[in-house]
Amino acid sequence: MPIIVQKYGGTSVADAERVNSVADRICAAREGGYDVVVVVSAMGDMTDDLTAMAYDLTPTPEPRELDMLLTAGERITMSLLAIAINAKGPRAASYTGSQAGIITDTQHGRAKIVDVRPGRILEALSAGNVVIVAGFQGVSTTADVTTLGRGGSDTTGVALAAALGAEFCEIYTDVEGVFTADPRIEPTARKLVSVSYEEMLELAASGAKVLQLRSVEYARRNDVKIHVRSSFTDEPGTWVIEGDERMEQALISGVALDVDEAKVTLEEVPDRPGVAAAIFKAVAAEAINVDMIVQNVSHEGKTDLSFTVPRADIGRLETLMGSVVNEVGAFRYNADDDIAKVSLVGAGMKSHPGVAADMFDALASERINIEMISTSSIRISCVVRREDAERAVRAVHARFGLGDGASSASEA
Amino acid sequence: MPIIVQKYGGTSVADAERVNSVADRICAAREGGYDVVVVVSAMGDMTDDLTAMAYDLTPTPEPRELDMLLTAGERITMSLLAIAINAKGPRAASYTGSQAGIITDTQHGRAKIVDVRPGRILEALSAGNVVIVAGFQGVSTTADVTTLGRGGSDTTGVALAAALGAEFCEIYTDVEGVFTADPRIEPTARKLVSVSYEEMLELAASGAKVLQLRSVEYARRNDVKIHVRSSFTDEPGTWVIEGDERMEQALISGVALDVDEAKVTLEEVPDRPGVAAAIFKAVAAEAINVDMIVQNVSHEGKTDLSFTVPRADIGRLETLMGSVVNEVGAFRYNADDDIAKVSLVGAGMKSHPGVAADMFDALASERINIEMISTSSIRISCVVRREDAERAVRAVHARFGLGDGASSASEA
Repeated sequence: MPIIVQKYGGTSVADAERVNSVADRICAAREGGYDVVVVVSAMGDMTDDLTAMAYDLTPTPEPRELDMLLTAGERITMSLLAIAINAKGPRAASYTGSQAGIITDTQHGRAKIVDVRPGRILEALSAGNVVIVAGFQGVSTTADVTTLGRGGSDTTGVALAAALGAEFCEIYTDVEGVFTADPRIEPTARKLVSVSYEEMLELAASGAKVLQLRSVEYARRNDVKIHVRSSFTDEPGTWVIEGDERMEQALISGVALDVDEAKVTLEEVPDRPGVAAAIFKAVAAEAINVDMIVQNVSHEGKTDLSFTVPRADIGRLETLMGSVVNEVGAFRYNADDDIAKVSLVGAGMKSHPGVAADMFDALASERINIEMISTSSIRISCVVRREDAERAVRAVHARFGLGDGASSASEA
Repeated sequence: MPIIVQKYGGTSVADAERVNSVADRICAAREGGYDVVVVVSAMGDMTDDLTAMAYDLTPTPEPRELDMLLTAGERITMSLLAIAINAKGPRAASYTGSQAGIITDTQHGRAKIVDVRPGRILEALSAGNVVIVAGFQGVSTTADVTTLGRGGSDTTGVALAAALGAEFCEIYTDVEGVFTADPRIEPTARKLVSVSYEEMLELAASGAKVLQLRSVEYARRNDVKIHVRSSFTDEPGTWVIEGDERMEQALISGVALDVDEAKVTLEEVPDRPGVAAAIFKAVAAEAINVDMIVQNVSHEGKTDLSFTVPRADIGRLETLMGSVVNEVGAFRYNADDDIAKVSLVGAGMKSHPGVAADMFDALASERINIEMISTSSIRISCVVRREDAERAVRAVHARFGLGDGASSASEA
């Protein structure tokens, strides 16, 4: 029988009723003629709750032990789901990441999958079982329990789909798919039938939270078709596939908003070789991810250099900026966490040079000031004031005609 | 360095504060010159809570999956405790039952340990770690996660102590040791310095909940010294050791009370060979444990036969008693769950024939009627009305002079 992988996120299995409804959906897929492998996240806020218990004890919990702790969450979901399925008739058996052969490196808290050895899963499938696997976790090459980082269950699902040669990987979540914009911000936003890996990567990197970035990379590398959909409806969601398999070839896929970044500006930095390297070496040493970097042309041998980082890291960053200012001979720095990043993503913009200008014009017509710009071949991102962010999304969405023909605002 | 094993029960690790205090105790043992292996139970009511979640889904959860679910409890405790110890300085690493080499048979929910392979624990110890092991769980010979049944963490502790050649096994609990009677019933009850394996087995089988019966059997078979003590004080508790190692050789060790049994009586059973076998074969087929069995001499070829079973099983038992009555040609049966069993335990009674008579006399002087009697070489048990139970304990305790010289009732 062909195999499919289904992954259910935390809200999809938040309580007994939801677990039962997911069990029904799995039974239906099985009756549809598939061997079903299911990957689950921890229920609801369980991972946050367990994390809080550890930080109650110490501000710096031992990473190996934190991983051991957090993996209890998926263990609870997977066994409850297997119990629910068994009670409905089909046989189901649950397996930890380790039992399922998810082999990772030894980086606790953000381990990378280095191998998948699905022998035991294949055995369980051929014995007639629905197989439930704990997402987000694996076992390291030194036999310790590891976790894959936030959203890691998506990656578990995709990695298993690749290793098992599954037809596709369904990612069940609490939204109905990938939209042209966040429907809570733009009521006319339209669900996309499909989106390419490349666009999904840009969307995920631009603040769209529907899929974990790494899972999309893994899917692209291993050619795994992803179907992102809601566990609360039977509607089809959005397919994430190779660009040339798409039925529609839209210019623009969507507008993404990221409000979790902060901007740091170094003023009057001497414009000479080695300065930028010195700055970002210091930032990288603190393991802080830099997103956008913008440097303007200099005046009188001085320039301003701005970059964005996750807002959560701004405290750690500020502790080192004083010495960075001294080291490179800048005038001063300032940090600003009242910003937002609005991004327009679309594979079609490669061959349409006017897209950037249209986006800037849409913002200008709303009198929204652009503070930073950065682009890739299929993305344009603008940093604006946080208070302008949602207006900016709506303006850009409208300018590119991304919404439904008829506004659904009155139904919202 | 000599190894000791410490086992902490659920109330000893019920919250962050208690986990921290247990971590301090472990650090102190380490500073005392021991390699320390710690076995933990699930926090507080976690096992009950997880069980309830499974039974919310179905009245008959799949045993394999129920075991997978319940083992999440110890996983949470052990990693939190390891985090707490690491935060205090010493290195600590936690291991699941499977990682610790606790190999069991395949009986989910009540697996028996068939082997302990402590290679990984010994490695972790020689690398300088405090080793924390999940109690109550193991991995079966078919690589599935198993649990050892209620109180199984005691057995994990004793089994590891045996396999590691530990000096002794400390069982930390919420009582201060083994008492001559339950201090909540008899305020003058005295903590025993030591008790023999044999007596501890009889006490555990007679309702004393301080240690799991199987752990005491395991300790006796493997000559593991147990020290039962409270995690809430620094007072020494009670040693459970070979009888001939005891410093005191008391006639009587204590009075135990069991209020968790029910009595079933078959009236006018034909007194012929095979009848008792037919009755208890039917009961055993339902996996109901029978404790006491009493049959009197017959009159006119008929006799009454009474036995006790766990009160929790009385519902299941009643569904089969109708057919048992027909099968053996009895008049009728009745079930009575308003009883209690009072037991007197003491190795010294082997050589003191008057003990039983004294016990019956103590009950008679309180006008307490004895409904059933059963004895072993070091135990006398009497079934009485539930309402008489606590008076019975106090009467017997006083008759054998088991209390403190001075009554501590006024301090209670």
